[in-house]
Amino acid sequence: MRIHVQNLSDDPGFAITPAQWAAAAARTPDVSAGHVLSFGETAEEFRASIQQAEVLVAQTGAVRRLFPAEAPRLRLIYCTAAGLDSLAPFDWLPPNAQLLNNRGAHGAKAGEYGIMALLMLATGMPEFATAQRAGRWAPRPGFVLAGRHVAVVGLGTLGSAVAAQAARFGMRVTGVRTRSEPHPACAQVVTLDALDTVLPDTDFLVLALPLTAATQGMLDRRRIALLPQGAGVVNIGRGALLDQDALCDALETGHMSGAVLDVFVPEPVPPGHRLWATPNLVMTPHVSADDPNTYVPLSLDIFFQNLRAFRDGAALPNRFDTARGY
Amino acid sequence: MRIHVQNLSDDPGFAITPAQWAAAAARTPDVSAGHVLSFGETAEEFRASIQQAEVLVAQTGAVRRLFPAEAPRLRLIYCTAAGLDSLAPFDWLPPNAQLLNNRGAHGAKAGEYGIMALLMLATGMPEFATAQRAGRWAPRPGFVLAGRHVAVVGLGTLGSAVAAQAARFGMRVTGVRTRSEPHPACAQVVTLDALDTVLPDTDFLVLALPLTAATQGMLDRRRIALLPQGAGVVNIGRGALLDQDALCDALETGHMSGAVLDVFVPEPVPPGHRLWATPNLVMTPHVSADDPNTYVPLSLDIFFQNLRAFRDGAALPNRFDTARGY
Repeated sequence: MRIHVQNLSDDPGFAITPAQWAAAAARTPDVSAGHVLSFGETAEEFRASIQQAEVLVAQTGAVRRLFPAEAPRLRLIYCTAAGLDSLAPFDWLPPNAQLLNNRGAHGAKAGEYGIMALLMLATGMPEFATAQRAGRWAPRPGFVLAGRHVAVVGLGTLGSAVAAQAARFGMRVTGVRTRSEPHPACAQVVTLDALDTVLPDTDFLVLALPLTAATQGMLDRRRIALLPQGAGVVNIGRGALLDQDALCDALETGHMSGAVLDVFVPEPVPPGHRLWATPNLVMTPHVSADDPNTYVPLSLDIFFQNLRAFRDGAALPNRFDTARGY
Repeated sequence: MRIHVQNLSDDPGFAITPAQWAAAAARTPDVSAGHVLSFGETAEEFRASIQQAEVLVAQTGAVRRLFPAEAPRLRLIYCTAAGLDSLAPFDWLPPNAQLLNNRGAHGAKAGEYGIMALLMLATGMPEFATAQRAGRWAPRPGFVLAGRHVAVVGLGTLGSAVAAQAARFGMRVTGVRTRSEPHPACAQVVTLDALDTVLPDTDFLVLALPLTAATQGMLDRRRIALLPQGAGVVNIGRGALLDQDALCDALETGHMSGAVLDVFVPEPVPPGHRLWATPNLVMTPHVSADDPNTYVPLSLDIFFQNLRAFRDGAALPNRFDTARGY
C-alpha cells in the first residue's frame, strides 16, 4: 500500500522518524513489508503524497491543519493521539477513510502520573507548593494510600492504568464508566448515571474520560459540592470535563484540599489566568500520558496491529467512532 | 513496672493517648498487663513521675527539654522517633537507662513519599512547579521509571522502603550502606566509600541516612559535581547530610534537573531563606515519614516488642547506639 507519514514541524518531540518506522517494521515483518512509504513535514509534502496515499499516519495537529484535502484513495487515517476531540466535527473525513487513534499507547506513563498525583494529594503536596510560593513552613499531616477510596471516572487505557496502580497501593477503587461490567482493579464498577451516589464517599476523584458531548462539564459545581470536605481531584482527561471556575472556587474556600490537573481550557493556559494563582492547585502542561522514549514506538506497534487487521478484513481495534467521540 | 508516658504539649498530632495505649496493650496482652501507668504533658507532671519510673515512653522533643533529670530507677527510654541526633551529645542519659528509638514505624509512609518523589522527578514536577509560580506554560517530556537507575544511600527502614517501591516500578536500584551485604530490593549494594563510583551513573539519588559525624555533609559540592547532568536528588534523612548551598547552585545552573527535599538546615526554614526561591526545588516541611493515623499505633507496637525483649533478657531490637548515632 501507499503509506504517507506526516509529522508536525512544531512538535518534533513526538515526530515519527524513518529510523523509528524501520524499527517498528522489523518487529512486525508480516505486515510491514512491501509498502510504498513517504514522509512529510510541510503542507507541500503532504499535498504531494496525499492524492495517492491509501494510509496516512500522522500527528493529530497535522490532520487538524491539513484537512479537508483531496484524498480519494485514502482508507485509513491513524492519528498518534488517543483523544481526537480537537478534530471534531468530523465532516472533513474523506468518504472511504476510517479514523484510528493510538488508544493503548498511554497506559504506563498515565498510570505513573495518576499514582503520583494520588500520592501528592495524600501527602499534601498542593498545600506545600502553595506554602512554598509564600516562603511559609506549614507542616500538616499526610497519610498513606492504603484503605482510602478513589473513584476513577473512565476505565479506558488511562483510567485502567490509574485504577491498577491505586489497587496495588491498597486503595479501595470504584470505577465509573458507561457500563457496569466488573474491572479487575476495581472493588466495584458503577455507571456514569450513578456518579452522584459515589461522590459523597470519595477521598479522591480521578477524571480519565474522553471529551464528548456527554462528558463535557460533567464535574460541575453541583457535583463538586457533593464531594466531601477535603477531597482531592485529578484530571488527566480533558480540561472541559470540569467547570474550572467552580473547581478554583472549591480550592479557594478549602472545600477541596487539593487538585492535580494536567489538562485545561484553554491550552496553553494564558499568562495571568486565574488558574495560575489558585491555591492548592498543582498544574502540569498536558504531559501526563506522554513518554517520548516509548510513545512513538508504542504508537507504531499499535498502527501495525491495525494494519494487519485491515489487511485481514477484521475489526480494527483502534477504530475511532466519530459519532460516539472515542 | 512503672511506666511514664510523656507527651509534648506543642505537638499534639503525635501525642500518645490513653486510648491508643489501651488498644496497643490489647494487641500484646502478654507483656502489657500489670504495669503502673502515668501520663504527663507538662514539666510538673514529668517531675512528679520520673523519680519512680522504670520506663519512659516519650515524644523526642519532651526528652530533649526535660533531661537532665533525676531518674534513678529509669531503665528504658523509648522515643517515638527514629533519628535521635537532636538528643546528642548523650551525656544526659541516666546511668542505668538504655535508649530506644521507633525504627520501623516509618516504612510505609516513607516508601510512598520516596516513590512519589521519584515519580515527580521523572515527570518534571520541580520544573513545572517553578514554571507555575511564574504563570508560564512550559511542557517538557517526562519518562517512566522502568529501567532508570536510582541510588539509595542508607538501607534502614526508610531506605529499604524506598528501594522496595523503586524495584516494584522496574527501576534498577543500587543500595549504598556501611556493609555490602545484599538487599532484596537492590540489584547491587556497595559500601559508602564506593559512593563516588556510583554517582556518575545515577539518574536519581535518594538520601535516607541518619545524621552522624560520619554522614554529615556527605553529599558535598564535589560529589554533586560527580552526578550526571540532569540528575535528581531526594533527601528524607536529615538536612545536614548535604551541602544546601552547593545543591541550590546545582539547581540554579541546571546541572541538576530537580530536587525533592523534606529535611533542611535549619528547620523550620526561615522566611526569606535562599531555599524558598531556588528553582526546580520542591520542599516539604519534614513530613515524609509520618502518618499520624498509623504512627502512634505502630510506635507502641514496637515499644511492646522491646518491652518483651527486656523482660526476657533478650537483645533490644530498637536499642539506639549513642556512640554510632543510630
